[in-house]
Amino acid sequence: MKKITVAMFLFDGFELLDVFGPLEMFSIMGERIEVLVTAPEAGLVRSVAGTRVEATVTLSKLPSVDVLMIPGGIGTRGVVGDKTLIQSLTEVIKRTPTVASICTGAGVLAATGALDNKQATSNKMAFEWACRMGPKTEWIPKARWVEDGKFVTSAGVSAGMDMALALIEQWFGSEQAEAVALGAEYDWHRDPGWDPFAAKAGLV
Amino acid sequence: MKKITVAMFLFDGFELLDVFGPLEMFSIMGERIEVLVTAPEAGLVRSVAGTRVEATVTLSKLPSVDVLMIPGGIGTRGVVGDKTLIQSLTEVIKRTPTVASICTGAGVLAATGALDNKQATSNKMAFEWACRMGPKTEWIPKARWVEDGKFVTSAGVSAGMDMALALIEQWFGSEQAEAVALGAEYDWHRDPGWDPFAAKAGLV
Repeated sequence: MKKITVAMFLFDGFELLDVFGPLEMFSIMGERIEVLVTAPEAGLVRSVAGTRVEATVTLSKLPSVDVLMIPGGIGTRGVVGDKTLIQSLTEVIKRTPTVASICTGAGVLAATGALDNKQATSNKMAFEWACRMGPKTEWIPKARWVEDGKFVTSAGVSAGMDMALALIEQWFGSEQAEAVALGAEYDWHRDPGWDPFAAKAGLV
Repeated sequence: MKKITVAMFLFDGFELLDVFGPLEMFSIMGERIEVLVTAPEAGLVRSVAGTRVEATVTLSKLPSVDVLMIPGGIGTRGVVGDKTLIQSLTEVIKRTPTVASICTGAGVLAATGALDNKQATSNKMAFEWACRMGPKTEWIPKARWVEDGKFVTSAGVSAGMDMALALIEQWFGSEQAEAVALGAEYDWHRDPGWDPFAAKAGLV
């Protein structure tokens, strides 16, 4: 049985749905996708909403995984200002075959330099911030998610669910991804170019 | 400033997105919606996916709130078999002005007797289970969510987000709800009759 391991990176002030949208889709896949929740320090991590969630692995001790995921949230502003943390993230990003971000998590990814000379997208309401974090990145304003090499960056919050289903499709095929969307009764947007929010945010 | 207080009920084996879809929408409203996370016992509560989330209030000590929300997940099967817990839930349901469920949470609500002689819906892949929990309920197979008096029951997993936005619209108006959907870059299904999943599950 093919198995994928995913590390979800939490930090103080992470956005709830950025994390739990994708993790819901992965959890419906059962044992085929194993998720490790990691953070600067293992323990309880406070979301933007206040609710605390347990991270079981300290980032510096994270074992090898197939995928690293970086969510957004107002706490990203603290993450990019923490040089030691950015250094730890940079090391994990280098050794991980697939690295994905949700929402302003793309700004964190950009702050490590990983998105230099790559295409990427981010939350449409905070697009300018992500652009500042990655001045050498080709930012795509109208996209639900963007793949460039090993990097997959998704738009704001809910976009992480569409990206997660696209990843499940790549890993396990269309039928599996459709079964997951049905299990979650989720209206999956399969087209990475679908994005009515870019116009609403005045970006296009 | 109008303020709404919501209690989200967690239990061992709750479904992640049932809880965090609605809580994401509420958190975008900032201080206007206050969320208390409650459980049979305050502390860490394990989701279906394994990730543990902190409940800060023991159910029997829950203060008065405007809204009680009951999510689904495989753990609902344990909840309905726990007579003491069902009794505690019954008391909270009686004194709470609005009671909402997501997914198989409707089965828990039905097991308290609260949905007797009322219309309701639930997850479409586990519809038969909900029906068995509420033999005196008029179960609606094709619905994203159903309102009957103070009870609002939503379909599977993702449906909780559409219901949460509809509640925000009722409480704070359309413009606010639209701003939240935009903030979450969420494709809000505003029609409670929208439900392509009932047919996919062979219910209609």
